[in-house]
Amino acid sequence: MNELPVPTFDNIRAAHDRIRPRIHRTPVLTCATLDRMSGARLWFKCENLQKVGAFKIRGATNAVFSLSGEAARPGVATHSSGNHGAALAQAAAWRGIKAIVVMPRNAPQAKRRAVEGYGAEIVFCDPGVEARTEMLRQVVERTAMTVVHPYNDPHVIAGQGTAALELLEDVANLDAVIAPVGGGGLISGTAIACAGASPRTAVYAAEPANADDAQRSFRAGRLITTGNSDTIADGLRTSLGSLTFEIIGAGVTDILTATEDQIVAAMRLIWERMKIIVEPSCAVPLAVILAHPDVFRDRSVGVILTGGNVDLEALPWAR
Amino acid sequence: MNELPVPTFDNIRAAHDRIRPRIHRTPVLTCATLDRMSGARLWFKCENLQKVGAFKIRGATNAVFSLSGEAARPGVATHSSGNHGAALAQAAAWRGIKAIVVMPRNAPQAKRRAVEGYGAEIVFCDPGVEARTEMLRQVVERTAMTVVHPYNDPHVIAGQGTAALELLEDVANLDAVIAPVGGGGLISGTAIACAGASPRTAVYAAEPANADDAQRSFRAGRLITTGNSDTIADGLRTSLGSLTFEIIGAGVTDILTATEDQIVAAMRLIWERMKIIVEPSCAVPLAVILAHPDVFRDRSVGVILTGGNVDLEALPWAR
Repeated sequence: MNELPVPTFDNIRAAHDRIRPRIHRTPVLTCATLDRMSGARLWFKCENLQKVGAFKIRGATNAVFSLSGEAARPGVATHSSGNHGAALAQAAAWRGIKAIVVMPRNAPQAKRRAVEGYGAEIVFCDPGVEARTEMLRQVVERTAMTVVHPYNDPHVIAGQGTAALELLEDVANLDAVIAPVGGGGLISGTAIACAGASPRTAVYAAEPANADDAQRSFRAGRLITTGNSDTIADGLRTSLGSLTFEIIGAGVTDILTATEDQIVAAMRLIWERMKIIVEPSCAVPLAVILAHPDVFRDRSVGVILTGGNVDLEALPWAR
Repeated sequence: MNELPVPTFDNIRAAHDRIRPRIHRTPVLTCATLDRMSGARLWFKCENLQKVGAFKIRGATNAVFSLSGEAARPGVATHSSGNHGAALAQAAAWRGIKAIVVMPRNAPQAKRRAVEGYGAEIVFCDPGVEARTEMLRQVVERTAMTVVHPYNDPHVIAGQGTAALELLEDVANLDAVIAPVGGGGLISGTAIACAGASPRTAVYAAEPANADDAQRSFRAGRLITTGNSDTIADGLRTSLGSLTFEIIGAGVTDILTATEDQIVAAMRLIWERMKIIVEPSCAVPLAVILAHPDVFRDRSVGVILTGGNVDLEALPWAR
C-alpha cells in the first residue's frame, strides 16, 4: 500500500516555477514522414535536448530545491545506474550541496563519467536491488544525506510532470499524450499534468514487451514487480513503485508495448528522419504508436522524448 | 565579373513570407558545456532539424515559388550530389512540377534515395565539373526546364538568408554570426540579413583548411576556384561563384579555417553534448570557434548549424 502523498496539479505548477530558471524550455518538433507513417499528427517534446540529456533533471531539481536548508545541508544521495544519478548530481551542484550516487560496479563508463563530471561522488556496489539498497542505507547512516528516490517520490513526480505541462502549453487540443514507463515517475507526472491542464487528453504509457511489469500490474490491478526485464531500453527495466502504481491506475488510459525490433527500428527512424539523438528507452513511445496504428490514427498525439544519452561507439544497428 | 543582381534585405524578407508556410521554424539551442569550452555565449540555429535535413530547402523553395507560371511549367533542373538536389526535389513536389537532378554516378546511395524519395528524376553523369555541366546543358535543351543553381542565384541566396533572419529575430544583440562557406549561398544570405537586421553583428565564414579557396579568394580580392578540396566536409568542397564572391567581399568580416581533426572533434561534441545529428560540414563553425578562441571569447555568437544528413553506418569515429 502506498503511504506517500499523491502530487497535485498545483504541485506541478509550483515545480515549474521552481525549476524553470535552470532547465531548458525544450522544443516541440514535428516530422512529416513520421506523421505519414503513423497516420497521426505527432508532436515530439524533446527532453533528449534537456540539460543532462534527459527529463530526469526536472524531478531531481524540483526535489533538491524543495528541501529545507536543514535537510539539504548534509547533501543528497540516490542509487541509479542511469540518468537520475547524473541529474541529481547536477541539481546538487546547482544548490551547492554534496551528492552521492550508488552505482553497480558494472555500470557503463559513460554513465560514471557523467555523474563525476557534475561533481558527485560515486559509491560502487554489487549489481542487484538488494546490494544497492543496502549500500544506500549505509551511505545515509554515515552521512545523514537525504535520499532522492528516482521515481517513487512526490517531488520527483511533480518535477517530471512539468514536461507535459510545457507540451500542453505549446500545443493545443492534444487527443493523447504518450510517454515511456519504467519506474513510472514521468508517466505519473504526465497523467497529473494532463488531468489538470487538459482533461480530454488521453494518457498512454509505452513499455517494452520484454519488461512489461507495468502493463501486467495495470491490468491485474495489483503491483507486480517480478518478471523479465531483458530489454535494450535500459531506462525502463525498473518496476513501478507504490506511489507511481497508484497514480497510473487512476490516471492512465492504457499501457501498450512494443518488441525489441520495433524499438530499435523506431530509434533509427528518429535519428534518420528527425536528426536528433535518442536512447533506446526514448524510442519506445514511437515504437508503440507504429505497432498500434488503430489506437492513434487520425489523432493529435504528444510524444515525450525522454533522453539522448547513448554510447556513440555502440549503436544497435552497427555492423 | 558578376552580372547577377545582388539580393537585398527586402528580398530576404519577401523570401521569408514566401517559404514560411512550408518550412520549419527551427529551434535555437544553447549548450552550457560548449559555452564553457569556447568562453563565448553560443546560440545554435538548428537547420539540421529543417525539412530535408538542411537549410538548402529555404533557397530551393524560394527559387521554385518565385518562378512565373510559364517558367515553372516545364519543371526545374540542377546538378547536385548533396542537399540542394533533395531540397529542389521537395520544393518542386510542393509546387507540383517536375524536377531533374544531375548527379555523378558515384554519388552515395543515401543521397540518391533522398532525391528519388521526394519524387525527382535523377540523370547520372561522369564525376567532375565539366561532365555535370554538359549533362545539365543537355537536360535543359531537351526539357526546357529552368535551372536552379545551388548557390550562385539571387533567389537561392535570399532564401538561405532567412535562417539568419529568424536567428536575429529570436536572439537580440548578437556580436557575431558564423556559418560555413562552400559555394557561398548561405554566408551571402547571412551577410545581407545581418547588414539589414543587425548592422553591428560581425559575420564570419567557416571553412575547412583543406578546402580554403574562399579564404584565399577573400584575402586576394579575386575569385580563386582552384586548389585542394580533400575534406570530410563534403558540402563545402565547392568553390565560390561570381555573385557569392562579390557579396562575401562586401559583407563578411573574415573567413577562418579549421583542420580535419578539429572538424571531426567538433562534430562529435555536438552529437554528444547537444544530442543532435550534424553532418561534418555543419560542424565546421564550432571547430573554427574552438580553434580561434581569441576571436570569439566573451562574445555572443549565433552559429548556423546547416545540416544533419549523414550515413549512420559510417561515422567518422567508428572503430
